[in-house]
Amino acid sequence: MGILNKLRMLATAPLLLLFIPALSLADPLPSWNDGTTKTAIVDFVEKVTRKGSPDFVEESQRIATFDNDGNLWAEQPVYFQLIYAIDQVKKMAPQHPEWKTEEPFASILKGDRRKVMASGKEGLMKILAATHANMTAEEFQSNVRDWLNTAKHPKTGQPYNKMVYQPMLELLDYLRANGFKTFIVSGGGVDFMRVFAEQTYGIPPDQVVGSSIKAKYEVRDGKPVIIKLPEINLVDDKEGKPVGIHQYIGQRPIFAAGNSDGDYQMMEWTTAGDGPRFGLLLHHTDGEREWAYDRKSHIGQLNKGLDDAGEKGWTVIDMKNDWKVIFPFDKK
Amino acid sequence: MGILNKLRMLATAPLLLLFIPALSLADPLPSWNDGTTKTAIVDFVEKVTRKGSPDFVEESQRIATFDNDGNLWAEQPVYFQLIYAIDQVKKMAPQHPEWKTEEPFASILKGDRRKVMASGKEGLMKILAATHANMTAEEFQSNVRDWLNTAKHPKTGQPYNKMVYQPMLELLDYLRANGFKTFIVSGGGVDFMRVFAEQTYGIPPDQVVGSSIKAKYEVRDGKPVIIKLPEINLVDDKEGKPVGIHQYIGQRPIFAAGNSDGDYQMMEWTTAGDGPRFGLLLHHTDGEREWAYDRKSHIGQLNKGLDDAGEKGWTVIDMKNDWKVIFPFDKK
Repeated sequence: MGILNKLRMLATAPLLLLFIPALSLADPLPSWNDGTTKTAIVDFVEKVTRKGSPDFVEESQRIATFDNDGNLWAEQPVYFQLIYAIDQVKKMAPQHPEWKTEEPFASILKGDRRKVMASGKEGLMKILAATHANMTAEEFQSNVRDWLNTAKHPKTGQPYNKMVYQPMLELLDYLRANGFKTFIVSGGGVDFMRVFAEQTYGIPPDQVVGSSIKAKYEVRDGKPVIIKLPEINLVDDKEGKPVGIHQYIGQRPIFAAGNSDGDYQMMEWTTAGDGPRFGLLLHHTDGEREWAYDRKSHIGQLNKGLDDAGEKGWTVIDMKNDWKVIFPFDKK
Repeated sequence: MGILNKLRMLATAPLLLLFIPALSLADPLPSWNDGTTKTAIVDFVEKVTRKGSPDFVEESQRIATFDNDGNLWAEQPVYFQLIYAIDQVKKMAPQHPEWKTEEPFASILKGDRRKVMASGKEGLMKILAATHANMTAEEFQSNVRDWLNTAKHPKTGQPYNKMVYQPMLELLDYLRANGFKTFIVSGGGVDFMRVFAEQTYGIPPDQVVGSSIKAKYEVRDGKPVIIKLPEINLVDDKEGKPVGIHQYIGQRPIFAAGNSDGDYQMMEWTTAGDGPRFGLLLHHTDGEREWAYDRKSHIGQLNKGLDDAGEKGWTVIDMKNDWKVIFPFDKK
């Protein structure tokens, strides 16, 4: 190498160094450790967005669906919506003296969670009817908003809508920055999630799909209202998830993310389509920073999904090793 | 005025003239005649989008809903989806020899429309089951696509998805250019409309709300499919429209457009909300270029809406006088 070229190299080297921190800052997934999981996600997004690539997907077809409980926010010790319902029963109890002897309300008021659980599906429907139905949609929204502003998680002391996964927030942003339309597809209640989904996840109400109860429209004292009825409309779980996607979104996603066997059919439906597809399965492996649970858990059971992920080509997130940070409030 | 100022005016006048054609070209609603209807629409859009205006509405709340039949596309001589169903029965007849004697199929095959209509709701459910259910969602979509590519309207000889209203296409574009999210909310079948809504109206599948039948998910020979079932899920008409909006969109629109009493509750629900609201009612008054019908029509009956539009503050489009052009193929 001539002396002139050497000089040129020396002159450009500091310039190159200047670019390195800039590139690091531009990492769209800073809370994800480098490794096969992060690489698989980035490789997929790059290939479907690269014009001229054989795997290029038009923006109108870049549909990504995310489960909520245990996937975007935590779900331990029990689903947060159930905690909401129990808190509401306690709050409403003074207006319902009959609940002192009526199950499952009596056990809720005594704090006997085991007996509440033993009341089964019938008990759950009674709790649902008392706390989610026979009121206007606006009253329900206002109750949920009040609860989110005051209730605190028993372990972290944080509001429930802060118990969201920082790496997933980054993933949602990253997908949207690449032309994806992001949806929630959850077994949780759609009206419940819509109260906070836009502010928390950047997902507007019409892009939230969830379980729902029936509703009716009526004009009360000259004022039109939507009344929530104590009758199931859609159970958006397991086989119900592809059905919910069909009814609400109307096209098959190319990217689906879940964490439990309740998401199995959504991921199966998504990844069985033609062309490039991505299935992302979150495995809760971090008993220290979050919770560790899978095959035998009563909440968010993940059994069949773990068995079949390899064969289905799904990418499994090992929470403990793949995530630098769990919750936003953990960030230094 | 001094000579200098006169000279200045003469110098700038041609410049001003140069701007006039530019402004005319920029008219976002060129197929609408100038008048109170067009002015009302433009005034509304300008006030809700002007930052600092007391009527300013955040983009996330700029939800606009449009009925489809008779509002975005024509609906005469009968709803186009019914023509689709009748065409499908004729196409499927060779595989169903029993239809020669089974009503309402026998009357369809004989071309006896009066007798088909006389079969009522029960007959309609049989036609629906035969042509819309017991097949995969993909098979249905493919059938509708084939039909749109081949069937022609009996009066104009045009494909049905060309029988759309040019002024409404401009209005949809104008609203979207001003940060509105546009939705269809129709009594028509959601799976039927989703086949053409994106290409025809620029409305993606997840922003189409309509009547629907139930569906189930299953894995057939190792291949996941959605099967359409012969069972009503939602009738998105009259009181069903605000319910459909609640279930699918999850927030109250600020702008609603319809043309029949089937849209009454959607417009009532929309315009009864707080803050600026807009109700737009299309009155079919043009028997020459389109069809003239209202209070006594069996299709798209508009009676109560006409009575109450004034009191409700809804803007009524007089098709004959407000629209320069009806269909895109009418354009010179």
